[in-house]
Formats: sequence, C-alpha cells, structure tokens
Amino acid sequence: MSELEKSLQPDVVISSRVRLARNYKDVPFASMMNHAGAEKTIDYAAQAVIAAGRDQDFQMLRMEALSTDERNRLVEHHLISYDLLKFTDLSAALISRDKTLSIMVNEEDHLRIQGLLPGMQLIHAAEIAFDADSMLSVNHEYAFDAQWGYLTSCPTNTGTGMRASTMLHLPALSATRQMGAVTQAVSRLGLTVRGLYGEGSDALGNLYQLSNQVTLGKTEEDMIRSLIAATRQLADHELAVREKLIERNPAEREDKIMRSVGIMSQARIMPLSEFMQYMSDMRLAVCSGYMTAELQAIDQMMMDLQPASIRVRCDSELTDAECDQVRAELLRDQIGRLLSNQN
Amino acid sequence: MSELEKSLQPDVVISSRVRLARNYKDVPFASMMNHAGAEKTIDYAAQAVIAAGRDQDFQMLRMEALSTDERNRLVEHHLISYDLLKFTDLSAALISRDKTLSIMVNEEDHLRIQGLLPGMQLIHAAEIAFDADSMLSVNHEYAFDAQWGYLTSCPTNTGTGMRASTMLHLPALSATRQMGAVTQAVSRLGLTVRGLYGEGSDALGNLYQLSNQVTLGKTEEDMIRSLIAATRQLADHELAVREKLIERNPAEREDKIMRSVGIMSQARIMPLSEFMQYMSDMRLAVCSGYMTAELQAIDQMMMDLQPASIRVRCDSELTDAECDQVRAELLRDQIGRLLSNQN
Repeated sequence: MSELEKSLQPDVVISSRVRLARNYKDVPFASMMNHAGAEKTIDYAAQAVIAAGRDQDFQMLRMEALSTDERNRLVEHHLISYDLLKFTDLSAALISRDKTLSIMVNEEDHLRIQGLLPGMQLIHAAEIAFDADSMLSVNHEYAFDAQWGYLTSCPTNTGTGMRASTMLHLPALSATRQMGAVTQAVSRLGLTVRGLYGEGSDALGNLYQLSNQVTLGKTEEDMIRSLIAATRQLADHELAVREKLIERNPAEREDKIMRSVGIMSQARIMPLSEFMQYMSDMRLAVCSGYMTAELQAIDQMMMDLQPASIRVRCDSELTDAECDQVRAELLRDQIGRLLSNQN
Repeated sequence: MSELEKSLQPDVVISSRVRLARNYKDVPFASMMNHAGAEKTIDYAAQAVIAAGRDQDFQMLRMEALSTDERNRLVEHHLISYDLLKFTDLSAALISRDKTLSIMVNEEDHLRIQGLLPGMQLIHAAEIAFDADSMLSVNHEYAFDAQWGYLTSCPTNTGTGMRASTMLHLPALSATRQMGAVTQAVSRLGLTVRGLYGEGSDALGNLYQLSNQVTLGKTEEDMIRSLIAATRQLADHELAVREKLIERNPAEREDKIMRSVGIMSQARIMPLSEFMQYMSDMRLAVCSGYMTAELQAIDQMMMDLQPASIRVRCDSELTDAECDQVRAELLRDQIGRLLSNQN
C-alpha cells in the first residue's frame, strides 16, 4: 500500500496525520468527567509509557502548568487541539521528543493518539499511532463493543475512532476559486476538506486539511486507502492548475510570487494574514523552481512565526502590533539567509 | 557665496545645472536656420574647442548619426534636451568626458551651454558653463545688445540667457500634497517648479526641477543667489515634513519604504512608473538611515534604467514589456549587491 503514497510529492502534501480516539472502560466519559477520573486517565497514560520503557522519549505536559501562549504554541504546531484547552485543569499531553507522536489526555475522549509526519506518510503516521494505541492499552482495557467498535464521547467518532488527514497546500485551486467544487466532490467520497486557518476560500496560506468524515463501517486500511486516493487526485489537480497558470503568463506569475518573497525580506511589520499569503507564495516559488529552499523549512517557519509561538520565543507578552514587528524581524533574518544561499 | 550652498545636503538636492543660451552674430537665428548656417555654428563650436586645446576632453555627437535610443539616452541622462531632437539633421552636442559640460548646438539657440553637477553645486556648475562660454566666443562674436544683453530666439531667454536649476527629491512634500502650494510660492519669487518626469503632483519619482523664470533685469549672480535661497527653503521644508511623517508612525514608515526595496530586489517585471516610485522610496530609505548606500549611485541607477538607456545597453530593440523585464533583472542584480553590503 505504501507504493500508493510514493508518487505524491511534497509540493502539495505538507503533512500526514492519523488520530485515534480511545476511552478507558473503567473511567467516566467526558460528559461525566471529574478530577478523580481525569487523574486516573493521565496516570494510566503515564504508567503505560513508563511500562514500555519509553518515558525518556516523552514530555508530559499538564495544561494547567502552561501559560496561555505555551498552550497555543502547541496548537499552532499541530501537537494538540484547541479542544484540549477547554478544561485545562483536567487535560494533559504526552508528546514525543521528535514530535511525531502526541497523546492528548482528556480532550473530548480520554485519549487522542496522534501520529504526525511531514509530507505524504499516512501509512507511517498510522503505524506510529497504532503502536502507541497498543502501548496505552497493555494494562487497561478500552471501551470497545464487538458490534460498534471503539466507543467514543461523540458518536461521530465511534467505530474505528480514527481520523486520518493530509494537510494540503492548494494555492492554484484557491486562486482559481475551485475550492467550493472540491469540497462538494470530496464529500461524495465520505471525506471533508476545510481551511486549516480560517474557512473555505479564505483559508489563510491556502492550507487545507483533507480528512475522512466517516469512522464507522469501514476498516482503517480502507479509510486510509481512500484518503490517499483522494489526496492524490487533489494534488494532481492542483499541480495541473499551477502549470496552466504559469503557462498562461510565465513572467507575470514569477513576478507576482517573487515580489512576495521580496516584501518578506524587507518588511518591518508583518501581520499574520499577509504573512500566510506570502509564505504560500514562497512555497510556490520553491515548487516552481524560482528559488531553492527546503519545503520543510518553509513549513516549519510558517508554524514558528504564528503569534503564540513568537510570544513564547520572546518570552514576553507582546501586543499584536509588537508581534507583527518581531515576525517581520525574524522573517528578514531567515529569508535573508535563504536568499543569500541562492545561486 | 559658496558658503550658502554648504549646508544643503544631498538628501534633497540631486543635481545643479546652469544653462546659457548664446547665438553667434553672423549666423541666422533658429527661425531662419538652414543647413549652411547649422554647419557654421557646429564648426564654430568645434573649432573653439580645438583652439582651446580641449578637443580630447569632448565627444562630438551629430544627432543624425545616432539611433533614436542613443538620442533618448542622452535626454534621460540630462545631457541634452528633447528640443535638440527637433531637427536632428542640423543639431549636435559636444559633451565633456566627465559629463559635467554639455554644449548643445542648434537647439532653439545656436548654443546651449550646460554645466551639470551632482548635489548642491550651482556656483561650480555656473563656473563650468561660463568657462565654456568664454571659450566658445574667443573667435566669433555673440549677438549681444548693450541694453538687452544676450539676444536669443525666444525673448523669454533674452538678457542673461541663463537658466539655473536644481533637481530636487521631494517625496514628503508630494505625499502630503503640498506641491501645489509650493508651486505658487516659488512663482512669487520669479522661480518655477515642475515635475522632471510627468507634471505636477504626479511627478514620477517625486523629482522636481526648480529654476529661474526670469532672465532679464537681474545679474547672473543675483539669480543664482535667489535660486540657492529658494532651494534651501524648499529643502528645509521637505526635511521637516519627512521628520514629521516618521515621528507620526516610525515603524509604518520604515515598513512602507523598505517593502519597496524588497520588491525591487525580487521583481521579475518592473514598469517605469513603479520603478520611479520604488527608487524614490529607496532614496528615502538611505536618507532615513534604514539602509546604507551612496545617494549618487541611486541617482545614477535611476537614469541608467530609463527605457532608452536600457535599450542602448542591451543593443536591442526591446518592446516595452521586454524592457520592463530587463529593468527588473538589472535591478535585482544591483539591489542584491547593495543589500549584501548592509551591516
């Protein structure tokens, strides 16, 4: 099956994620959750990691011990969900040092086990999640029904309890206003596409998440297989439109995109939404061969220069305006270094 | 008198020019000009240069021997006027190797003797022009009337036959829409201000020429003295408004200006009017200390990347669109080198 993924280039697929919803049998579910129950799930998870001899690999983060910026920084880096921050006195996260595995404890379910990898690596991400899944249930049984599968807080997750998703960069489909049609098309496949930051055609940075909508009545393997197929279709479509846009006006296209890079290299104030658009352009510049850079480095920059991440980095309660100035400063430095390495 | 000029910084004054209109007594004036007469004035001028032993210092350019682009390139570099191109079969120019002296032959008058220097150097520019004036009249008498002074084709030049001018960079006065009021104010002093490229408030690159309107009834020294005084007033005004604009929004100001530099460093297509605006911003960036560069190098770039200058440089009949692409390419190279020298 991994053959299926191979041809999918990082030009479109930024990252792959598999998330499993699990609940322990002997602890109240979220709607009935209390402190005692919450401590129990956190303890189960922590003990499981220790029992597996992997506690040195993980950071245990109690949400109540973190500042608001530190929490939001984790969200910006896709390591936890916003929902984990609903009841910060109850929730925690076990995050592997290499960030490929994150176990959220006491989000909507007791456990949300996430495997996250750059590029098109859904199968590997699933392996990471299922490995952790086994580890976490060695000593404590999950709530599981022979007919329904894994039981979850919200019935939409019952069954496999799995959500697999790919994060896609779709600037050409966005620019040509095709995202509405795309949304309709993928929903017929039982999939959903949504803006990663902001909604619909105004998705910041033209970043979208494609994921399975249905968790019931299909095997995990089938779900991943159909997500890979849909990702491939979308990616091919995106690449074809990119090519068409360039063919139509090669110089104008390169000019528009490289001007964004130029602006980032010198701006003194860089608001978030502008930043996301210019970074989208820079990603496209690399994919189109207008400049050379590691796509992963660009994707990392896109996360690192989100508001909370900047505030944590500066260890300071910056206002939004100050944040925009620090972002501009960091960008100038990083883009400057990137550009000086061009040949 | 040169003390008057000293305090005037190159932040505002780009160049100083003094132009003398002269006609030989024994050759028909422009309205009656014919080939024989034209050859005579060209010969008088050429012989005068040889007699002074300075022929190695000069290039003699017959306009009919030049291509349209070569002619326009000279206009773009302020070495000749457009009017010299009205009858190219009659006209010529003697241009000194260092470009500080240009003698136009058979423009509206037999001779237009121009001294041109960077920055605020009106007195020196006048010396250059008057030196040449003496040289050119050693063997042939000018048309001169004891009461009226030098006689010229157009009565508005009669008298001293002198036009002195300063080329000014006035981005702050332009941005705050004060050029209308400035125009009125200087006209009361017998001076005139006009956009160097384009007219009025839409002057490309915010470049203006301030010059004396009256040539009669005042000595040359008085004229230059009043032009220096007016230049100083305008420059002080401009600098005060620049400071105010920065004080109001220091970060926004720097951001706006440096983005222009960033765009120039990466654009693939650079139309002329945009180019002039961004170069104006870059000049301001240097004056404001946002970046370091030689102002003269920027002013030189502004001339060198005008359309005809680009075509001559490429030795090719580029279309306007091609010209915009070559301009962008040359800019990327030059700005890139400038920026890599920043500390």
